[in-house]
Amino acid sequence: MNTVYIVGIGPGEYKKMTIEAVDILKKCDIIVGYTVYIQLLMPYFPQKTYIDTPMKKEEERCRLAFQTAQKGHDVALVCSGDAGVYGLAGLMILLEKEYPGCRTEVVAGVSSMLSGAAVLGAPLIHDFAVISLSDLLTPWEKIEKRLLYAAEADFVICIYNPSSKKRADYLQKACDIILNKRSETTECAVVRNIGRQGEESVCMTLKCLREYRADMFCTVFIGSSMTKRIGERLVTPRGYNIEKF
Amino acid sequence: MNTVYIVGIGPGEYKKMTIEAVDILKKCDIIVGYTVYIQLLMPYFPQKTYIDTPMKKEEERCRLAFQTAQKGHDVALVCSGDAGVYGLAGLMILLEKEYPGCRTEVVAGVSSMLSGAAVLGAPLIHDFAVISLSDLLTPWEKIEKRLLYAAEADFVICIYNPSSKKRADYLQKACDIILNKRSETTECAVVRNIGRQGEESVCMTLKCLREYRADMFCTVFIGSSMTKRIGERLVTPRGYNIEKF
Repeated sequence: MNTVYIVGIGPGEYKKMTIEAVDILKKCDIIVGYTVYIQLLMPYFPQKTYIDTPMKKEEERCRLAFQTAQKGHDVALVCSGDAGVYGLAGLMILLEKEYPGCRTEVVAGVSSMLSGAAVLGAPLIHDFAVISLSDLLTPWEKIEKRLLYAAEADFVICIYNPSSKKRADYLQKACDIILNKRSETTECAVVRNIGRQGEESVCMTLKCLREYRADMFCTVFIGSSMTKRIGERLVTPRGYNIEKF
Repeated sequence: MNTVYIVGIGPGEYKKMTIEAVDILKKCDIIVGYTVYIQLLMPYFPQKTYIDTPMKKEEERCRLAFQTAQKGHDVALVCSGDAGVYGLAGLMILLEKEYPGCRTEVVAGVSSMLSGAAVLGAPLIHDFAVISLSDLLTPWEKIEKRLLYAAEADFVICIYNPSSKKRADYLQKACDIILNKRSETTECAVVRNIGRQGEESVCMTLKCLREYRADMFCTVFIGSSMTKRIGERLVTPRGYNIEKF
């Protein structure tokens, strides 16, 4: 049985990978992934065969990983963050039965909600929802509904894929939906290039977030009604005598 | 300036820590944490001074970390999973200003939603909500409201702290709320002792989950309407020609 490891590499910095991810990448002779992540990994694991495919070629990338494993190689398919959060772990498991002799194993990594939250302080200490604004694979109406209910339930909301060239106004649209249920002064933040060169974070109100020009390197955090700004950090208290703070 | 590192150690197994977490624990001379996690770490980092406090002594534990740092030590406060998800990162940042000369730095780790999802396959590929059923620090009415809206929005729901001795029927109550909005046949799963000795997972319908006796070592996953069971694994597809599967 040939195993394809589906490895979450975290935000990109070597030290933010798990020991397990590093061990598996060392062990595998072939590493498959999206071009940008392959370029991040190459300096750390120099003596490997890399197979990279561009964005939107996810199914092709998955099939390449299986086909290579069927030839007897130890293969890792890498995803940024965690392979199980908007990553390829799902598609791989669904495709597995088409490749007899292959099995898949998912190796968890630090998703950008967690690495971004660490940069900001502690916005996700309490209940939260994670929503992608990409409507490539999801109807926009479903995304809108989730934003509305998440706002109404007073979750902290972490937004993946807040914007792209073709979806320049999606974050604004999302903020408008949330503003139906939540105050303009709700504490929010954007973290950009998490764990990579040029990492930056900025805290702002929901009103300001509506005007913010996010790009595909941003992860967005919208606080609950409890979320507080402490200097340049965000904290969602969990109830430890919070009236004191 | 003395830094207290707030370190998420992942589910407990050494290899599921990040390189960064290991580097910081090696560097610090004093490690503060909940008794159970301290016992997990001691074999990996033998020549350290450990300070452990029992459950429900969270504020005391945080203050001990600061007081020790003020004496000039390099201190790590450890949390299981990620320190920023139901962990102590929030309380530490709120308390920081009471300890002049101290600063805090959060080091992200693999939270049990991610390590549990990897065991199960890929339940969290698409939008999801994370809810704790512990009402020690949150009014139960708020938890109920979040469960209801999360169910209505068709999020995958990951439940932390599903039960304890005093809250033996909370998972049942949560299932009853969700059953108002979702089918009895919704795919669900429980993962127990993630990344520790005795790790086990079991898939079941929402109807069966209602009868399941969870304990405090369990993390519970409730699928969206899209979540599928593939053998003993759960996958939430993301829309890649899913009619094929």
